[in-house]
Amino acid sequence: MSVTKKASIQRRRDQQRPTDAGWRQELYDIIFEAETPSGRWFDIVLLIAILLSIAIVSLETVEGWSSVSFLEAGEWTLTALFTLEYLMRLACVRHPLKYARSFWGIIDLLSILPSYVGLFLGRSSRSFVILRSIRLLRVFRVLKLWRMMDEADELGTAVWRARNKIVVFLAVVLVAVTISGTLMFHIESVAAVEFDPENVKTTQFTSIPQAMYWAIVTMTTVGYGDVVPQTIVGKVIAAALILLGYSLIIVPSTFVTAEIMSHTTHESKITCEHCGVEDVREDAAYCYRCGTRL
Amino acid sequence: MSVTKKASIQRRRDQQRPTDAGWRQELYDIIFEAETPSGRWFDIVLLIAILLSIAIVSLETVEGWSSVSFLEAGEWTLTALFTLEYLMRLACVRHPLKYARSFWGIIDLLSILPSYVGLFLGRSSRSFVILRSIRLLRVFRVLKLWRMMDEADELGTAVWRARNKIVVFLAVVLVAVTISGTLMFHIESVAAVEFDPENVKTTQFTSIPQAMYWAIVTMTTVGYGDVVPQTIVGKVIAAALILLGYSLIIVPSTFVTAEIMSHTTHESKITCEHCGVEDVREDAAYCYRCGTRL
Amino acid sequence: MSVTKKASIQRRRDQQRPTDAGWRQELYDIIFEAETPSGRWFDIVLLIAILLSIAIVSLETVEGWSSVSFLEAGEWTLTALFTLEYLMRLACVRHPLKYARSFWGIIDLLSILPSYVGLFLGRSSRSFVILRSIRLLRVFRVLKLWRMMDEADELGTAVWRARNKIVVFLAVVLVAVTISGTLMFHIESVAAVEFDPENVKTTQFTSIPQAMYWAIVTMTTVGYGDVVPQTIVGKVIAAALILLGYSLIIVPSTFVTAEIMSHTTHESKITCEHCGVEDVREDAAYCYRCGTRL
Amino acid sequence: MSVTKKASIQRRRDQQRPTDAGWRQELYDIIFEAETPSGRWFDIVLLIAILLSIAIVSLETVEGWSSVSFLEAGEWTLTALFTLEYLMRLACVRHPLKYARSFWGIIDLLSILPSYVGLFLGRSSRSFVILRSIRLLRVFRVLKLWRMMDEADELGTAVWRARNKIVVFLAVVLVAVTISGTLMFHIESVAAVEFDPENVKTTQFTSIPQAMYWAIVTMTTVGYGDVVPQTIVGKVIAAALILLGYSLIIVPSTFVTAEIMSHTTHESKITCEHCGVEDVREDAAYCYRCGTRL
Repeated sequence: MSVTKKASIQRRRDQQRPTDAGWRQELYDIIFEAETPSGRWFDIVLLIAILLSIAIVSLETVEGWSSVSFLEAGEWTLTALFTLEYLMRLACVRHPLKYARSFWGIIDLLSILPSYVGLFLGRSSRSFVILRSIRLLRVFRVLKLWRMMDEADELGTAVWRARNKIVVFLAVVLVAVTISGTLMFHIESVAAVEFDPENVKTTQFTSIPQAMYWAIVTMTTVGYGDVVPQTIVGKVIAAALILLGYSLIIVPSTFVTAEIMSHTTHESKITCEHCGVEDVREDAAYCYRCGTRL
Repeated sequence: MSVTKKASIQRRRDQQRPTDAGWRQELYDIIFEAETPSGRWFDIVLLIAILLSIAIVSLETVEGWSSVSFLEAGEWTLTALFTLEYLMRLACVRHPLKYARSFWGIIDLLSILPSYVGLFLGRSSRSFVILRSIRLLRVFRVLKLWRMMDEADELGTAVWRARNKIVVFLAVVLVAVTISGTLMFHIESVAAVEFDPENVKTTQFTSIPQAMYWAIVTMTTVGYGDVVPQTIVGKVIAAALILLGYSLIIVPSTFVTAEIMSHTTHESKITCEHCGVEDVREDAAYCYRCGTRL
Repeated sequence: MSVTKKASIQRRRDQQRPTDAGWRQELYDIIFEAETPSGRWFDIVLLIAILLSIAIVSLETVEGWSSVSFLEAGEWTLTALFTLEYLMRLACVRHPLKYARSFWGIIDLLSILPSYVGLFLGRSSRSFVILRSIRLLRVFRVLKLWRMMDEADELGTAVWRARNKIVVFLAVVLVAVTISGTLMFHIESVAAVEFDPENVKTTQFTSIPQAMYWAIVTMTTVGYGDVVPQTIVGKVIAAALILLGYSLIIVPSTFVTAEIMSHTTHESKITCEHCGVEDVREDAAYCYRCGTRL
Repeated sequence: MSVTKKASIQRRRDQQRPTDAGWRQELYDIIFEAETPSGRWFDIVLLIAILLSIAIVSLETVEGWSSVSFLEAGEWTLTALFTLEYLMRLACVRHPLKYARSFWGIIDLLSILPSYVGLFLGRSSRSFVILRSIRLLRVFRVLKLWRMMDEADELGTAVWRARNKIVVFLAVVLVAVTISGTLMFHIESVAAVEFDPENVKTTQFTSIPQAMYWAIVTMTTVGYGDVVPQTIVGKVIAAALILLGYSLIIVPSTFVTAEIMSHTTHESKITCEHCGVEDVREDAAYCYRCGTRL
């Protein structure tokens, strides 16, 4: 992350930092920042709590586990914890109302409300699961933790640098998917019906969107097998499309690789002003060829 | 794209450019060229219209959506638009008849005709979908837009440079597929029948072409699962073939990667003005072929 | 493997080496070391014996083969061999009791006990197969053979160097899997039920963990097809997730590649004797850090 | 291919080359060599004939096509052609009997015999297809054609250079497959039976070899879906194994890539004796740095 970007994020955050030195400022640094050790610990505990609450939401959808008592107990403990955290966040920011109406403020509220509302109304419907899943979004907030990690940053940068190639790649894939899908629909469904009207019931290529779904599932080599060609001509065309599509996917993904690697391996070379070699390491103190102090 | 190639494409196009400066020449530049801002906008609008019409053709094949009124309305709006575009193209070219008989002229006509014919005859058959799908081909015309994009050009060049390796790769794959297919057919079908004549009904390797279809689906790791070995020997051979085939696919696709990357990473080559070699290192002091000081 | 690491392993082993030169020391070198030719042969024979016993354990689970006599004969021959080996190991180490209580000593005992116990109790249950499978762990002991091979060592080093990137990669995959799984469960199961209550029986996304299992199987392009989306919205979202997930998997695995390759291709690094930096270019005339003439 | 290897192949072949200059020597050069234009044409025609005969053998196994007359006509034409070729080969070699007893001599005979034998006995069984498929092996003989192509040669060399890594890779895969297979069998089959004896009927992990087949199909991301985990624990373990196995496959295949690429891009560099630069192109006439004639 560049210094400018970091500074801009810092400035935005500081608008909410309490001006008076005291417990509110200390609490703010723990809850909203990750630079201090206690701030880091707070984020790690919060991450584990969020992951646990997601695990509970997930397990409650498994048949037979929906009313297990320790899941419910865990759910209430975590809801209490998140409520406490929400109140603490409100307590330590400079403008509580402004925070409550911000994006993360609303997400924080939405991740505790459903449990309380469910208490009054009873859990009548599965829809409550949807609302509770909003907690998942809070994982992204804690990700500020690893925005600090160089690896994740490098990954993001590489993907960003290759964005043009990714767009061309997606465009090529979409055109290929549309053409393959339309072709296979006509072969498997329309042509089969022309020759044998009873066939229309058994074909799995029931519509062009369905055939395009098949094309994506096939070209990415996922290959579920829920939609497969059944006529001989369909199988021949499918085999040809698989080989073609395989090349289509391989070649552009290679491009992304090339993009990333050229920046990983040759990223930071400088020129020696004395002898003119251009591939001196950026962190070198002396030129490797002429020995001049850089 | 080299300068020579661009010039040759330009010359071919210019044969249809009206000689008299006026509205026809301006219209021609908008419709047939993509260099001017309005020409670019025309292409983008046309691309969206084509994609929309493809979406409508696709959705009409979904059961229950075939007579939704807004789809029909959209279809007619787009047909009107394409008709207008066709007439405009005829109006602004130097020789309208020559254009009407050219490849793109016929495609343009074929993409509007089925809608009008369908009006008189009624939509009795699914075959009309096939005719309307011809519009898909028109996407390629608009692709002149991104032939300008360096990424797509680079991609094409890389694939072209690796063409020999792709041919060897396809040959190796085809030989492997034929041998695997024949082998598996004998094991799963013929051998099984010799031992247990009732087996012939249940085997999924009903013929050698079917077994070759299995081999392609397996070696590209698509793995639908509609054709799978069922005897123990068949499974052992299949497992061995998967591992072998995996290597066969991985190694040559690596070759394509190597080909692309060697051209991507060492891109900065200069030309020797004395002898004309084009791949001199950028940091060279002397040409490696004629020894001229650069 | 660095010299220091080798020495430390050597020292640990030597604690069990008999002090008196004689048959015990010779036997020890054959059984516990792999440097001498006879020690190498012992390991190879042992490896084959272990693999054979694993093959027998495997084949006995195949229906109809569980009581084939030559399998049972082979089993008893190998058990006798392993018993002899266990006794020999006990005989040649300096402190037999210490060996018997060490990790490998217990594994050695556990891999022969079940056969003898089964003799007295009769093979009443399939559980005995589990106990006999412990022998599989002994393969790792013989792997000291190929810890000597440079290739395996290099592989291990490369994976170790890329460990940070692998962790980030797994974290990204897990977050993506959780989000995809929760999303698809809501679309395929909850949303479908809201519109059509009878749908709950047929959906394959019965719970969020099931949907997460689907997401892993899909994003790694395995694609069994035992869980597939069945609603139109579900298929559209699934297709988008496949393309996104494909990129998610491709890009980080490229990172691991880049990591490995940067160490493989620029291998020839030399050490500066003056300041001790280890990654000086082989063709350097001066150290890049201290500027000493090399 | 190295010059020595080429010479050794040449010498072996020359033992059969007729000593007397005349039609036999000319025929020999056409049939057995591929250096002359007519020799190349002979090989191409032969390759097409073999591919055609394989296509006929394949198509005859398709239900309903087994007695199509033009297939039978083609079969007899090709058999006649192969018989003529066999007689011509016998006619032009120096020692016909020695050729008839060589590997290729026997293959040549075996690829025409079944058709004649079938004429006398009638085609009673599918076993004849097996015998006729031997013709497939003859494709390899014609491959001498593309042993001349640099790409195929380079591919073979790269695979050969990476052989040690491929062996380690296969060993790692086999150990991983055995452990995964044994583990999944115990979880899906044995453990399930202990808890619920009725389960034994429905599990798809019927034996350890079956579970190992599943592990190979899964770890290579083929994923047929004919064998899938059905218990919750099984699915969790399977998901973990997929992610682990994915890494196991990705990392070593990267090694093969690294091996190939380091030889492709840096294959042939020479050292300038005057200034000492080491990465001068092998085909350079002058050093790129000091301009010295090499």
